[in-house]
Amino acid sequence: MTAPRFITLEGGEGAGKSTQVRALASRLTDLGHKVTVTREPGGAPGAEAIRALLVNGDTGRWTPRAETLLHFAAREDHLARTIRPALERGAWVISDRFVDSTYAYQGVGQGVERGEIDALASMVIDEDMPVLTLILDLPVEVGLSRAHQRGGDDRYERMGVEFHIALRNAFLDIAVAHPSRCVVIDATHSVEDVSRHIWKVVTERVSL
Amino acid sequence: MTAPRFITLEGGEGAGKSTQVRALASRLTDLGHKVTVTREPGGAPGAEAIRALLVNGDTGRWTPRAETLLHFAAREDHLARTIRPALERGAWVISDRFVDSTYAYQGVGQGVERGEIDALASMVIDEDMPVLTLILDLPVEVGLSRAHQRGGDDRYERMGVEFHIALRNAFLDIAVAHPSRCVVIDATHSVEDVSRHIWKVVTERVSL
Repeated sequence: MTAPRFITLEGGEGAGKSTQVRALASRLTDLGHKVTVTREPGGAPGAEAIRALLVNGDTGRWTPRAETLLHFAAREDHLARTIRPALERGAWVISDRFVDSTYAYQGVGQGVERGEIDALASMVIDEDMPVLTLILDLPVEVGLSRAHQRGGDDRYERMGVEFHIALRNAFLDIAVAHPSRCVVIDATHSVEDVSRHIWKVVTERVSL
Repeated sequence: MTAPRFITLEGGEGAGKSTQVRALASRLTDLGHKVTVTREPGGAPGAEAIRALLVNGDTGRWTPRAETLLHFAAREDHLARTIRPALERGAWVISDRFVDSTYAYQGVGQGVERGEIDALASMVIDEDMPVLTLILDLPVEVGLSRAHQRGGDDRYERMGVEFHIALRNAFLDIAVAHPSRCVVIDATHSVEDVSRHIWKVVTERVSL
């Protein structure tokens, strides 16, 4: 039984997470590994139905606490239906966002008390934290501009520049607080350069 | 400032809760009171969207914990958008189901730990518990038969007789544990008799 190989990519809008998730999955698949690529909110049928409630509609659609509870309901479904079964059959799991996004978006960005998020994380995630979290960092203006160029217009992208500046700082603070799990990746470079940097970190930190 | 007049009706399927909620609201309205009639899961636009995820689909659609989190996300929305604003403008609030249903359905019926529900209740409800909870009680066979006759076929109604027997006992246990808030109403009698019994309890327990 090898250690669970659960890796998450985090960061603000337009940081290139989904592109880098696919690139990392491709390198692992080429080496013969089983890989499950997934995302939050979502990653399982029930969780994707909850995602639709979160990414559509007015920015003030939910109270911050309701939003937090919906994210953890989706995360519970994601863990039970997708992440744990994949890890149990020996696959790598690479997720575009996980619990750090809740601490950044709902905690720092929307003001939900850290203790409430801690209590929910303890209830839902328990032992199943990622072994490695790659935090893709870039200036907020660059990220939002990229997100708009790809045609993005979801609820979170519409939350205003100050919200996204708070988010960026929140992710960097998470990296400082959890150095054994988190690595900050400079996402201003080309897709290829970022992908190479990520691969270097993965091969150094996780036994292939 | 009068005390908040928040009353909930609880009980299994087919107990006549929604009929009795309307009858009670009608008596209060006739006396000149402002009354907000509502229900769970639901009672606000966001909470009703969550309700659709809960009452439709296969009985095994959600893990019990995901289901609990969805109920509390809906309850947070219900409290923030409907219940608290109504109480603040001096209306009575009468809800068809509230947190006792989570303890009965997800706790006793589906095996979610009581401590998890307590933690969520403390986070979401805080001080806003009902002053009076009427638990409409009747034998499971009678309730399910009534529910089927009215054409009901939601996820909870399909959960099997043993589940509904556990539910009935759970509601009766809640009444025993919280005698200052809960009153058991024998719901085998006629709609008119049950309505009269409820009105007697309300006028005895809540200052009009």
